[in-house]
Amino acid sequence: MYRLFHVPLSPFCRKVRLALAEKRIEVELVEERYWERDADFMRRNPAGKVPVLRVDGAHLSESMAICEFLEETHPEPALLPATTEGRYETRRLVSWFDDKFFNEVTSKLLYERVNKKVMKQGYPDSAAVKAGAKAIKFHLDYMAWLLDQRRWLAGDQMTLADFAAAAHLSSLDYISDVDWRRSETVKDWYAKIKSRPAFRSILADQVPGFPPPAHYTDLDF
Amino acid sequence: MYRLFHVPLSPFCRKVRLALAEKRIEVELVEERYWERDADFMRRNPAGKVPVLRVDGAHLSESMAICEFLEETHPEPALLPATTEGRYETRRLVSWFDDKFFNEVTSKLLYERVNKKVMKQGYPDSAAVKAGAKAIKFHLDYMAWLLDQRRWLAGDQMTLADFAAAAHLSSLDYISDVDWRRSETVKDWYAKIKSRPAFRSILADQVPGFPPPAHYTDLDF
Repeated sequence: MYRLFHVPLSPFCRKVRLALAEKRIEVELVEERYWERDADFMRRNPAGKVPVLRVDGAHLSESMAICEFLEETHPEPALLPATTEGRYETRRLVSWFDDKFFNEVTSKLLYERVNKKVMKQGYPDSAAVKAGAKAIKFHLDYMAWLLDQRRWLAGDQMTLADFAAAAHLSSLDYISDVDWRRSETVKDWYAKIKSRPAFRSILADQVPGFPPPAHYTDLDF
Repeated sequence: MYRLFHVPLSPFCRKVRLALAEKRIEVELVEERYWERDADFMRRNPAGKVPVLRVDGAHLSESMAICEFLEETHPEPALLPATTEGRYETRRLVSWFDDKFFNEVTSKLLYERVNKKVMKQGYPDSAAVKAGAKAIKFHLDYMAWLLDQRRWLAGDQMTLADFAAAAHLSSLDYISDVDWRRSETVKDWYAKIKSRPAFRSILADQVPGFPPPAHYTDLDF
């Protein structure tokens, strides 16, 4: 069986978990306190981060490289569109969320509020938290603009772009940092993705010391 | 003809330029001072960064999404291997350089020393420069370890992984921040890639106020 070394609120791990679950690939989840740089873990992944997916004795790292690998080895259901243009748009949006959204929002809210405490790295930087809370509004508006023209973020089909976005937003929703009143369109999209069986494991996550709000698991939030 | 909006020393732009040149796709290069957030440019690319590739009226962004697009539309010569494992390893290493190497090295040396001055954002942070100069040693050693087992970084074939690595190292070499004496193996690899016709445009780059050292263009450095 596949084994995924992960941390529960990591959006990069969540994207891989969603892809695995949607493709009905059985996986054993192992929590990895990667910041302690355990020697065994560092040998498996010199980059020293999660997710790491163990497949047939090999250890795969870098979340998008893992997702592309899963797409090639388990093509059904497809999480990349059939057209070149669709695949480009999906990959562009995965980078948008994993790079731009991560740097402007996730790293400023989730990392300041949760990771710093868990990793014993001090207190949240209030200027960073404020900047993240401001930046998420622009991103929700950009998503609403895309979703006004399309059923899913990259087009008419659910793709890895939706999983990348939902991975970041669900981690932020765990700490009540998403204002769902900002856009009905984005809320409807999230309700659709939240109700998928692949999302169940994400909604069951619990981080000690950080109980999720009641609406986190509620499909009618 | 394709048009690429770029800045000369950006490793992300250089990776795309190398892929275009290796595939013999004619392109017009347009320098884009993206940090000035010109309204026309922002409309073409809401992420507000380079590279942006104009293809048949569409504007493509995110360097790896662009490279995957070029690979699908211009498959020869192939810059991704034919096997799933080879493609995984190539994509993993592109992420390694564009994420880990960028954050630990390029952003700390090139951005501190050059971009801050060009963008009028103050003076280099000496602690960052020191950290970058230390981190590049680890990365050169990791490359040497890979290249002791393989002809190219991801295997026996030149791939986008080599272009990603060469893009970062060539930008740093422009400001004399690569110690080529550290590894004969890495130096030999760079000499091979530097002598390719695709590299000529990179070696001809000039940034006003930052003349490159003599060895930058020298194939026998």
